[in-house]
Amino acid sequence: MVQSVHRAVRVLRELSTAGPRLGVTELAERIGIAKPTVHALLRTLEAEGLVRQDRETGKYLLGPGLLQLGNSYLDTQELRTRSVTWADALATGTGEAVWVAVLAGDHVLVVHHAFRPEGAVQILEVGASIPWHTCALGKAVVAFQPSSQRTALLAGELVRLTGRTLTDPAALAAQLEEVRGIGYATEEQEAALGDAGIASAVFDRSGEAVGAIGVVGPVERLLADDAVRQKHAVAVREVARNLSRELGAGRGTPWQAGA
Amino acid sequence: MVQSVHRAVRVLRELSTAGPRLGVTELAERIGIAKPTVHALLRTLEAEGLVRQDRETGKYLLGPGLLQLGNSYLDTQELRTRSVTWADALATGTGEAVWVAVLAGDHVLVVHHAFRPEGAVQILEVGASIPWHTCALGKAVVAFQPSSQRTALLAGELVRLTGRTLTDPAALAAQLEEVRGIGYATEEQEAALGDAGIASAVFDRSGEAVGAIGVVGPVERLLADDAVRQKHAVAVREVARNLSRELGAGRGTPWQAGA
Repeated sequence: MVQSVHRAVRVLRELSTAGPRLGVTELAERIGIAKPTVHALLRTLEAEGLVRQDRETGKYLLGPGLLQLGNSYLDTQELRTRSVTWADALATGTGEAVWVAVLAGDHVLVVHHAFRPEGAVQILEVGASIPWHTCALGKAVVAFQPSSQRTALLAGELVRLTGRTLTDPAALAAQLEEVRGIGYATEEQEAALGDAGIASAVFDRSGEAVGAIGVVGPVERLLADDAVRQKHAVAVREVARNLSRELGAGRGTPWQAGA
Repeated sequence: MVQSVHRAVRVLRELSTAGPRLGVTELAERIGIAKPTVHALLRTLEAEGLVRQDRETGKYLLGPGLLQLGNSYLDTQELRTRSVTWADALATGTGEAVWVAVLAGDHVLVVHHAFRPEGAVQILEVGASIPWHTCALGKAVVAFQPSSQRTALLAGELVRLTGRTLTDPAALAAQLEEVRGIGYATEEQEAALGDAGIASAVFDRSGEAVGAIGVVGPVERLLADDAVRQKHAVAVREVARNLSRELGAGRGTPWQAGA
């Protein structure tokens, strides 16, 4: 562990979460390190374009270099590049928006978003970060993680985002068990009131669940009745299987067993 | 300058540009530092989610944490958040795609993209990075940088992307002078054959040119004739002025003088 690199990332995360504009003193207090150290880190990060200083206030903000690196991550993300065509097909077939996500810590991160074909103004959600247990994408991908990682995630913090968010580890474990059986996960207003989702895990050639693909939309439309829900689930599961095959997953993956 | 932070960023940049998958030995050779040092950096970056290791090959790739940070950068980018409505209005008014960009080193970085209203499949270009001298956005924003920075950029590397890319510093300096006079920049197949752009600089409350907004599209449509070009230029310049006013720019900004 290289301490100064760890601390530099702490600086970036503070600027990312605590607020857009922080001064050296505020950062030093939040991270618990000396002001001259924070100052040296900021100057290095600024020289690399990862932070920038507001001319007027002298406070610091995240820099454009982070967007370049984030974009490079997307370009080198095989799941993402391979999913574009499949996501479009799923959006066309279901008439709903499609998200593709990977697991990053205890959140899922949206790496691709195909807009709903007939939609009004839609906001691109690439880069959005959602607690895993509050969305179908998260439940779909976590269900097929190694059991030690599942246990760790269930033992972690399970925030409540709506009155319907599941925060009981036992209830969530039962849902994951069900996901492994039927090959898809459902979410009903557990992340935001009015929203729902249906998602399936995607596997690569090593048999690892590398992400998930699914539809998202208003609960009234997505889970209108059992027939609609079932139709969407079948479409999502089939696309996830095709995408997995394209990523090199064999017939012996856990998903195939569950399907 | 904190050396290990500088080196960690070097590692990220190598993974970003040289190829998606590099091993410890390759990285050590490219950066010119010892393998154990690279290994320690990679382990720290991996713990932070900024790189990940490919299970099969043991090589390293960029990690999802970079996308989260890149997204946070966009969220805290005042130019970007303020430009959404104006970009939509400009896209509707001109019938063309609209990009908003900031200057990052000697490139412009697209921070917002409003799709062409009547378009077919369009690829979102947020995060795209373009050499400043090959696009209208770059010329628009560089024209209003302090003269020392303009000189430095003109003295830097001016890559040739097409047969029409301007790489002569004197010719570019003359164009920048013209941009300061008329308040907008034009690009005609200088970054990619067939593409053109018209853009104007955007100023903030400190009077600094913080970015640019403009239309991009096929040269046949965008620069069809002088009347069309003029109509687009007037629309772009007006939106840039309105956006600048919203960012707090006063009437005394250089742009206002030029308009």
